[in-house]
Amino acid sequence: MLTIDINSDLGESFGAWKMGDDSAMLDVVSSANVACGFHAGDPAGILKTLNAAAERGVAIGAHVGYRDLAGFGRRNMDPLSEELIGDVIYQIGALQGLAKAAGTRVTYVKPHGALYNTIAIDTRQAADVIAAIRAIDPSLVLMALAGSQLVEQARTAGLTVVAEAFADRAYTPQGNLVSRREKGSVLHDPELVAQRMLRMVRDGVIEAIDGTMTQIDAQSICVHGDSPGAVAIAQRLRALLEESGHAVQPFAPAV
Amino acid sequence: MLTIDINSDLGESFGAWKMGDDSAMLDVVSSANVACGFHAGDPAGILKTLNAAAERGVAIGAHVGYRDLAGFGRRNMDPLSEELIGDVIYQIGALQGLAKAAGTRVTYVKPHGALYNTIAIDTRQAADVIAAIRAIDPSLVLMALAGSQLVEQARTAGLTVVAEAFADRAYTPQGNLVSRREKGSVLHDPELVAQRMLRMVRDGVIEAIDGTMTQIDAQSICVHGDSPGAVAIAQRLRALLEESGHAVQPFAPAV
Amino acid sequence: MLTIDINSDLGESFGAWKMGDDSAMLDVVSSANVACGFHAGDPAGILKTLNAAAERGVAIGAHVGYRDLAGFGRRNMDPLSEELIGDVIYQIGALQGLAKAAGTRVTYVKPHGALYNTIAIDTRQAADVIAAIRAIDPSLVLMALAGSQLVEQARTAGLTVVAEAFADRAYTPQGNLVSRREKGSVLHDPELVAQRMLRMVRDGVIEAIDGTMTQIDAQSICVHGDSPGAVAIAQRLRALLEESGHAVQPFAPAV
Amino acid sequence: MLTIDINSDLGESFGAWKMGDDSAMLDVVSSANVACGFHAGDPAGILKTLNAAAERGVAIGAHVGYRDLAGFGRRNMDPLSEELIGDVIYQIGALQGLAKAAGTRVTYVKPHGALYNTIAIDTRQAADVIAAIRAIDPSLVLMALAGSQLVEQARTAGLTVVAEAFADRAYTPQGNLVSRREKGSVLHDPELVAQRMLRMVRDGVIEAIDGTMTQIDAQSICVHGDSPGAVAIAQRLRALLEESGHAVQPFAPAV
Repeated sequence: MLTIDINSDLGESFGAWKMGDDSAMLDVVSSANVACGFHAGDPAGILKTLNAAAERGVAIGAHVGYRDLAGFGRRNMDPLSEELIGDVIYQIGALQGLAKAAGTRVTYVKPHGALYNTIAIDTRQAADVIAAIRAIDPSLVLMALAGSQLVEQARTAGLTVVAEAFADRAYTPQGNLVSRREKGSVLHDPELVAQRMLRMVRDGVIEAIDGTMTQIDAQSICVHGDSPGAVAIAQRLRALLEESGHAVQPFAPAV
Repeated sequence: MLTIDINSDLGESFGAWKMGDDSAMLDVVSSANVACGFHAGDPAGILKTLNAAAERGVAIGAHVGYRDLAGFGRRNMDPLSEELIGDVIYQIGALQGLAKAAGTRVTYVKPHGALYNTIAIDTRQAADVIAAIRAIDPSLVLMALAGSQLVEQARTAGLTVVAEAFADRAYTPQGNLVSRREKGSVLHDPELVAQRMLRMVRDGVIEAIDGTMTQIDAQSICVHGDSPGAVAIAQRLRALLEESGHAVQPFAPAV
Repeated sequence: MLTIDINSDLGESFGAWKMGDDSAMLDVVSSANVACGFHAGDPAGILKTLNAAAERGVAIGAHVGYRDLAGFGRRNMDPLSEELIGDVIYQIGALQGLAKAAGTRVTYVKPHGALYNTIAIDTRQAADVIAAIRAIDPSLVLMALAGSQLVEQARTAGLTVVAEAFADRAYTPQGNLVSRREKGSVLHDPELVAQRMLRMVRDGVIEAIDGTMTQIDAQSICVHGDSPGAVAIAQRLRALLEESGHAVQPFAPAV
Repeated sequence: MLTIDINSDLGESFGAWKMGDDSAMLDVVSSANVACGFHAGDPAGILKTLNAAAERGVAIGAHVGYRDLAGFGRRNMDPLSEELIGDVIYQIGALQGLAKAAGTRVTYVKPHGALYNTIAIDTRQAADVIAAIRAIDPSLVLMALAGSQLVEQARTAGLTVVAEAFADRAYTPQGNLVSRREKGSVLHDPELVAQRMLRMVRDGVIEAIDGTMTQIDAQSICVHGDSPGAVAIAQRLRALLEESGHAVQPFAPAV
């Protein structure tokens, strides 16, 4: 029996504004990437999500982002190294504090949005994120895009890395994500998505957009949580994996 | 030989805006109340202050405030309990993270500005701050206004409390601070301030604004750091205390 | 035939976070209280709402609030007069700029949330808001709570004031709103709400919570827009008023 | 007698944080680029600067920037066109409102920091800024870097453009600014700076860093205001220009 982790972005409400159905998603995922207040998430709302995650034994990751609330962390920025290092440590620390209050702990870090995409290719900003994690707690796992240079960069720097695949995204023959601007880049059929991920878990391959097989070495599967369809996809994915004899559980145990 | 703590508000710069002379003050104080980003302080700047404090063995307190950057946390607000609890935990956690990166740790919490004044008299918000501290780390010391109801409220709730006196402020015969709006409420003469505090350390009394003696039970002395005159006051205070045989040291040891 | 205005709070989304169904509400109301970015509203989203309002001939009010995005402007604050005056002018000016880009203009000002409630009773903050309006454009109408002291204070200061009633709220025999914390304070039945407002338009009275009649002198009716039920209430209200021979139109003409 | 404009960045304080000596600079410059709240400037502080500018007949420009208070607008960002257009209109409108309250008006727009540098070369973001200006008031003048493509792009789009030179910066033989990272890029000698600018006003040339002459077609000279040395440079520049028979006055008259 193989085990696999399913992760999703949660805690993304802010004050009066609600986003996603954290409760429903926490029943499906084994790891929660929880917003830390810079691109989304207010402390009271984050704490509710952490409490709900702790009740279900879901592992907690710090979903750190650029300081850009108006842009939801989706806009590229070029902070100085000292700024980015400080911002990442700050966000992880804040989430650690809230996690402690919720009786759980932060076990990994997953950068969000534009920061996620940037550090997959920008070694300077990647080094800043790595330095931040090492400065606050080198035992924190970094979750990174499977196949990106970041995986090696972070391992070389001494971090434990978990690579992730995206359940609802098409892949190129080279194992990269097809740009969202291209047709067919996002998949919507729960059964198709689930079958693709089952194959990846079993055989380490995903069918690329051109029909060829591409190797993907991933220990976690990312599902999105901010639409009803996404919840259905996540539910079917988990069900199929379990029906097929796999255990869905965090790569790093929650408290 | 009696020991006494001297504390000051530091880390209050924000991005391109500088405030105070943290380096000069860190040479004088034994405890640093470090801003946590809600009323002042950006992560990179906070980290610099923490590094400088760690080098000097100065103890670190989380100077938590209302979420009000434009008002520097000096405006009264009435957050819901869940909001205030979340905000305080978040700020303490963020500072703990940065402190860990600086090789030190947070040993106490001192609310800032309007929050400080409010919880000296508002038991609901005081209870929220106490609950937040207990939720993240009940061993954190709360620094509170000497003579305020908060001292007892927090002790009853199980926290260790350090009461503080204000070096440059006039007191009423009842042991309260004279309002800043009244004449003579703020003292500017370094020698006078130092002598008053020496007497308080020795005899537990301060001469009130009407010339009578009022008892003040304080384990820490707060000095301000955001003007050249304030640095001179702090320096003379420390010098006089040490000349008189007292040791200036943190009430809680830094790492 | 009597005419009456219906207003609602719109433009309250922020970045990735959506709130309310502005399009549906703009088909019902004659005046739109549009958020100005301090408690809600980002410029691009505000501009969309203004464009949609301009297409429908809906009048535009500046829905100015405290600078408190995390609290949605619902938390009491005590800004200095110069701060509050500056903040109100700034918000009105920003909305005027966006309105000009949308081919329309701002004709009135309606304070939001905690600021709305505060200036109904706090003459100092009320005077600040009045001063701000007079400083930027004394021809702007102030929308105020019917029966509050603010109506007279603003008129005495030279402003034109439109008083408003709340469609879905219970009233005391004295003509005040029943606190939301009390049972029965909020009405949910569209037909009941519509009939109550029709009577107010015709006879100037609302049945108070104790069954007595209370006089309400209002030229605008506020409906809420952030729930499906609220849209239905607004639609039934407008339909009944029009079936009864009344015209729903802005108290101040849009461009 | 030739006339020339001198401009400087002002209104850059924020809440409790002060920056620059606006009063001293307003005695020297003829045009004030006033921060609009996104990268710097709070409404009350902006209003003070506008009042002081109005007293002196100094023209007002909207110093619009990216929404990045923590980075002072100095970090590159890639907002969507609708976001950037909305943000620029919002900032101009807010400053127009405050200017009206101060008895003056906004006559031009000068982008700040990273936005300034970006639109000198990025035609998409430049087009957004131009579209924003045209949407709120096409008679607003755009102040742009002399020699940049933006000058032509904006003129082609129908805007009036004023090109500016930087008093304290070295130029390449091609008429571009020498990067701040290179040695000798910033000049500190007031007399040298003043003589260089006098020559530019008279002859339309500046001595480049390699000793050759480069043509600069500028109608305004930018001086910095955030250091004591900068004030001295600005004062000497104005004095020399006036001693040499030139009038320092706004390119666009203030009210």
